[in-house]
Amino acid sequence: MSQSNLSENVHVSLGSRSYDIAIVSDAADSIGDVVTNWLHDRFGESAKSHRAVVVTDQNLADSHAAAIERGLTSARWACSNIVLEPGENSKSLSVLNGLYDRMVAQKADRQTVVVAVGGGVVGDVAGFLAASFNRGIPFVQVPTTLLAQVDSSVGGKVGVNHPQAKNLIGAFYQPLGVFIDTTVLQSLPDRDYRSGLAEVVKYGVILDANFFEFLENNIDGLNRRDADVLRHVISCSCRLKADVVEQDEYERTGLRAVLNYGHTFAHAFEALLGYGELQHGEAVSIGMVCASRLAERLKLIDADVTQRQVALLKAVHLPISLPAESGLSIDAILERMSLDKKNIGGKLRFVLPTKLGHVELMSDIDEAEVRKVLEEALNSAQ
Amino acid sequence: MSQSNLSENVHVSLGSRSYDIAIVSDAADSIGDVVTNWLHDRFGESAKSHRAVVVTDQNLADSHAAAIERGLTSARWACSNIVLEPGENSKSLSVLNGLYDRMVAQKADRQTVVVAVGGGVVGDVAGFLAASFNRGIPFVQVPTTLLAQVDSSVGGKVGVNHPQAKNLIGAFYQPLGVFIDTTVLQSLPDRDYRSGLAEVVKYGVILDANFFEFLENNIDGLNRRDADVLRHVISCSCRLKADVVEQDEYERTGLRAVLNYGHTFAHAFEALLGYGELQHGEAVSIGMVCASRLAERLKLIDADVTQRQVALLKAVHLPISLPAESGLSIDAILERMSLDKKNIGGKLRFVLPTKLGHVELMSDIDEAEVRKVLEEALNSAQ
Repeated sequence: MSQSNLSENVHVSLGSRSYDIAIVSDAADSIGDVVTNWLHDRFGESAKSHRAVVVTDQNLADSHAAAIERGLTSARWACSNIVLEPGENSKSLSVLNGLYDRMVAQKADRQTVVVAVGGGVVGDVAGFLAASFNRGIPFVQVPTTLLAQVDSSVGGKVGVNHPQAKNLIGAFYQPLGVFIDTTVLQSLPDRDYRSGLAEVVKYGVILDANFFEFLENNIDGLNRRDADVLRHVISCSCRLKADVVEQDEYERTGLRAVLNYGHTFAHAFEALLGYGELQHGEAVSIGMVCASRLAERLKLIDADVTQRQVALLKAVHLPISLPAESGLSIDAILERMSLDKKNIGGKLRFVLPTKLGHVELMSDIDEAEVRKVLEEALNSAQ
Repeated sequence: MSQSNLSENVHVSLGSRSYDIAIVSDAADSIGDVVTNWLHDRFGESAKSHRAVVVTDQNLADSHAAAIERGLTSARWACSNIVLEPGENSKSLSVLNGLYDRMVAQKADRQTVVVAVGGGVVGDVAGFLAASFNRGIPFVQVPTTLLAQVDSSVGGKVGVNHPQAKNLIGAFYQPLGVFIDTTVLQSLPDRDYRSGLAEVVKYGVILDANFFEFLENNIDGLNRRDADVLRHVISCSCRLKADVVEQDEYERTGLRAVLNYGHTFAHAFEALLGYGELQHGEAVSIGMVCASRLAERLKLIDADVTQRQVALLKAVHLPISLPAESGLSIDAILERMSLDKKNIGGKLRFVLPTKLGHVELMSDIDEAEVRKVLEEALNSAQ
């Protein structure tokens, strides 16, 4: 691959809500000029007020968020910041209410740009803040986890949790742009990094066999977190997700459902084990193997398709079966899956591969077949 | 005019967010079929779940909201309701937070339709609830004041107040449709009704001299609240506002600013007198006369244009000068106007007529001229 100061760009085409994803390495200082250009492209040269509120969390405030602020300031942006507590608890209405107060206190106006520096939680909260402040102000995502870079930074989903339902309060709100510096991944904890890789593998399985093959051929680069490999992997993942989002921005046609490959299983595992026990990507990894085995049982694919997924997931040290101590029962998992909001009328529906690089939404799946793949996911743990 | 059971329809063309405004008289019972059609047009026949949550206030719960619920139920919609306290205090984050809880308790889902039966407050709160619940669920406006029918039901502005700024938290969120029954205006208090007429007159001045002439020729019908006259007046007003909104949905090009004719003055009057002292439409009426006199002083129009506005506003019993007991000072009004968010860099900007049916945004207005029209607005009160 080429020298490491190159950058990649992914254009997400959504009419007047189109935006770019800039993917760089070791170039946080370039963000000021990048955001200035985005602002002028969107609003014309009349966008004279270069004011940003950087929203981040305590883990990043002194590191990447500080670097981003310096990058903005050096391009003559006036910056202030809001620092959240790390963790899912910050995705709440009460935290959001406090953010409105902070924005008012910092005299934010319609031209202020909200810059979210963090993982999914920061992006979701700051994004909904931007979506709802003054009926929508510009919003830049600076995702700092691999999962946020390849997943939540494309698609415009922002919001907070309700005590009784995740992401219940939110919007589809597209950013002005997404700025990804792969360098921030160097300090990401191992489990977080690998969790992001699960979604990367998913894009290959559901949409692009060539990309899957690229991953198979670059396991060493992936495990070393090589900057060149990462820029390519992130830009391909964003491009693949963008292709889907462009055709189903508001999740209405059902097309966006393909992104849920492995997720019906994963959501049930996460919910039953308690969020945090398994990381989301770990649950997705196990869920993809379950879904692929289900597709095999239904004669949709050959065993080879599952085997290649298992081999790749193992090579990047992701789990392919439930932890031995999970103690989950098949009945509990089935019951939980039947609550999934993608189901209609209580029938189980799954996104399943028909070949490597293609999936389809399948209804009316025989529960007995699902039991068998769950048995395998539980037994191979023992 | 024609027989009174006719209906009018205004189509607001905003791409995938397009919607219809149905204007009927004495036909609340037809709403069920109307909303069913809108839902099928938008989401296809697959939209099988006919569930509505009617959001209204205590003043309407037993009257128009009950009639709307009966109309929905008779077309086999399953309805539940949420009743707010009347008044601006319901446009708050704390009320909104309670609404999310109520929606969860009533098991609302992505296919549930929020039906807002009320004036601007109910429409704004319920609209933002719909915009943000599950990232946006279908929303039907049933405006019950003339002001809401001709103004807030077109344009997609929804939201709640922050303690320090009106409408600070909100979105542009277009409804599935707007259902207007003129019959509800029969029981509207006189000041509320006339307040709505001020915005109607405004549309004539800023966009359509023929419509202005229609109003001049139908003063008796307006004062009697004649159903045929009202349907025509409401549909013309909605059409005129829709023409503007269609070109500037997100208030970015500045075009939507023409709708603020009279409002720079009006907002200052309302803020200084305390909200509620003058009704919004009354303040707009006085503000339009001020703006027109300012245009005269700047030689943009002849005295005749102001005179026709004054005559029409007086004929429908709207004020054209500040109340004698207002005690406002010109300096206080000027200072307040300089805070208006439409100003840039502290310079006064006004939307002013250049002929009947056309206005332009004018910058760099000489403060001395503004003082003179304010003197007149204050002196004619004494």
